[in-house]
Amino acid sequence: MSTEKMPLAGLKVLDLSRVYAGPYCTMMLGDLGAEVIKIERPGFGDDTRDFMPKKDGESGYFAYMNRNKKSITLDLKSPKGVEIVKELAKWADVMVENFSPGVVDKLGIGYKDIVKVNPEIIYGSISGFGQFGPYKSKPAYDVVTQAMGGFMALTGEKDGTPYKLGPSIVDASAGIHMAFAIMAALYYKNKTGKGQYIDVAMMDTAFSTLENFVVTKTLTGVAPTRNGNANLGSAPFNCFKTSDGYVTIACANDSLFKKLTDVMNRPDLLEIPEYGSNSLRKQNEEPLNAEIEKWTMQYKTAEIVEMLDKAKVPVGPILDVDDLVEDPHLKSRNMLINIPHPVFGDMIYPGNPLKFSLTNEIRMDSAALLGQHTDEILENVLKKSKEEIEELHKMEVL
Amino acid sequence: MSTEKMPLAGLKVLDLSRVYAGPYCTMMLGDLGAEVIKIERPGFGDDTRDFMPKKDGESGYFAYMNRNKKSITLDLKSPKGVEIVKELAKWADVMVENFSPGVVDKLGIGYKDIVKVNPEIIYGSISGFGQFGPYKSKPAYDVVTQAMGGFMALTGEKDGTPYKLGPSIVDASAGIHMAFAIMAALYYKNKTGKGQYIDVAMMDTAFSTLENFVVTKTLTGVAPTRNGNANLGSAPFNCFKTSDGYVTIACANDSLFKKLTDVMNRPDLLEIPEYGSNSLRKQNEEPLNAEIEKWTMQYKTAEIVEMLDKAKVPVGPILDVDDLVEDPHLKSRNMLINIPHPVFGDMIYPGNPLKFSLTNEIRMDSAALLGQHTDEILENVLKKSKEEIEELHKMEVL
Repeated sequence: MSTEKMPLAGLKVLDLSRVYAGPYCTMMLGDLGAEVIKIERPGFGDDTRDFMPKKDGESGYFAYMNRNKKSITLDLKSPKGVEIVKELAKWADVMVENFSPGVVDKLGIGYKDIVKVNPEIIYGSISGFGQFGPYKSKPAYDVVTQAMGGFMALTGEKDGTPYKLGPSIVDASAGIHMAFAIMAALYYKNKTGKGQYIDVAMMDTAFSTLENFVVTKTLTGVAPTRNGNANLGSAPFNCFKTSDGYVTIACANDSLFKKLTDVMNRPDLLEIPEYGSNSLRKQNEEPLNAEIEKWTMQYKTAEIVEMLDKAKVPVGPILDVDDLVEDPHLKSRNMLINIPHPVFGDMIYPGNPLKFSLTNEIRMDSAALLGQHTDEILENVLKKSKEEIEELHKMEVL
Repeated sequence: MSTEKMPLAGLKVLDLSRVYAGPYCTMMLGDLGAEVIKIERPGFGDDTRDFMPKKDGESGYFAYMNRNKKSITLDLKSPKGVEIVKELAKWADVMVENFSPGVVDKLGIGYKDIVKVNPEIIYGSISGFGQFGPYKSKPAYDVVTQAMGGFMALTGEKDGTPYKLGPSIVDASAGIHMAFAIMAALYYKNKTGKGQYIDVAMMDTAFSTLENFVVTKTLTGVAPTRNGNANLGSAPFNCFKTSDGYVTIACANDSLFKKLTDVMNRPDLLEIPEYGSNSLRKQNEEPLNAEIEKWTMQYKTAEIVEMLDKAKVPVGPILDVDDLVEDPHLKSRNMLINIPHPVFGDMIYPGNPLKFSLTNEIRMDSAALLGQHTDEILENVLKKSKEEIEELHKMEVL
């Protein structure tokens, strides 16, 4: 497919990242047309090549995160492998990695090594806790950063178990924050000619997205805690039981509350002084929520949604994965796309959430099999002879 | 402060956005040096000027999201106000808004109106469900998109209440996805001279970050459901009770499991065939998690963290907001910064999570009071005379 109608056509990305945070970053770059070369361990590849779901030996996890990328295998512990990384780094505009801090330096492919062969490179490192600071050496998975970045303490019932968001949201968040930072560095490079190094920590990105929870503490001295599905400042604004499940209803002002009471046919609620303003409703939300749930329990979720949609009250069903893959809205927005996979055949993936009016081509190259482009990259990008490539295979560098 | 050591110095952003998703996007642009002019309703301003926490009439919510931006008030329903928006759009490289779809068109400041006065502008719209598709007219708050984007169905116990993540994570996610998309469009414009329109929907961005949950359904036919703090593919990988709270422990492979059993002094667990591999441990996680919790309950969280940190097993306490504002790691990473506010005085905010090696200045202009820069912008940016400005005030356009 032509990349000329893609915004990042021509951008060259060398991708040493694995699992989720780094690959989500480079997926965003690749979806938008960048040429992404992914370096993987010979024999095994990215850890996620073995992650669920798997079929016929290939992983759907890997296939989603690594579409639109080419795969080259390289033994990073061999001098020859390091040499080839440096040759590829000369080709690249951008390099991305998410090993634990210190690993790339030990391998001889850290920023200080790469900047010698490509002074203008933009080099991004994603990690759990970043490249400096007291926790920098702590190993991290997403759940650890959801715990230490504040998400878990603020999710679940006040006196109940703290919950993580099911999907690994801090990985994705760190990845898209890094993608933005890389583009900002490219903007700067375009003006000044200068590349640079970027350090993004998962804990920092979680902390950066705690909305008003942090400033509530620093301004008032009182730290908000988790409180089920209640909103910090508005009511009724919660998740309610229906006769066949749950529904979310969100009223942040008097006008929405009035519309809700109209649909409920409960004008009497407007007469109760305790419900007379948003802040009063928030203070008295328990009895108010009970009134609303008494109403929602009489209907199916779909019925509540239909009634409140008509009245323009913010309302939503809890869609599960079965619902989402059939959702007409997601389908109409190209958020469910078929990318034929060399092993799976037809396969439905989440699409890209960025909809451009001009650069609106949807790129649909399947994820590569392990090392699928090794020879092609050595030959076409690094201009190695067939003999040299043969020799590298023999040396088990590839 | 000089912006020359900031990557986005020189970038001009016209910001019509309100509340969270749009303002988080433009906060990212402003933090990195872009000049952001925020247009607000005369008299009232952004809704969040009235959001908790408040002190002396000013909002900490607004102050966090709107640092590093200038404020001009404009009545968008008056022809003169629309005219001034268009004059500012001529000045701008980028325009961002997050009204409900259709609102800016009705006001006469939609992309099709603005592109006539500035053909090269990059115009980004964030909304709950996007500019097209069957749900486009549905009003949305974050909780509705956490419900309809899949997050809530996947958070909480299998047979319990679905939970939203406490903070409004889809707002932030849509904001940073849009910031990335804007930078990608600027990259394209730099090569081609062409601007364009970008449509980002909160539901799409949530759906895009469901990790392997969607592809598990599309590849295997079986949709994963919420399952407490368990990981979809690995065990032991969960949140455990301690004698004084909770702790997260994450072992995704044999080597980490071995290290954990060493610390627990339970080599016998390695001999049990049901725990012999990651996938077996996942299948038999209930009894395994019970064994681990029996151990964690004997210690305080801090003791477990210390022991497992030493052994390099991924572990984390559940840090709450009280912990976070005192956290030495966040402090060392400039994630807690003081920006003196004209009303609050000294005030601690979350810092910016993007750490650049070269463009490493930290911008610290306080959020503006409502309309603080109205006259300055009219005079310096639009070159209006004092008489014209006086007249606009009289007409109540400002």
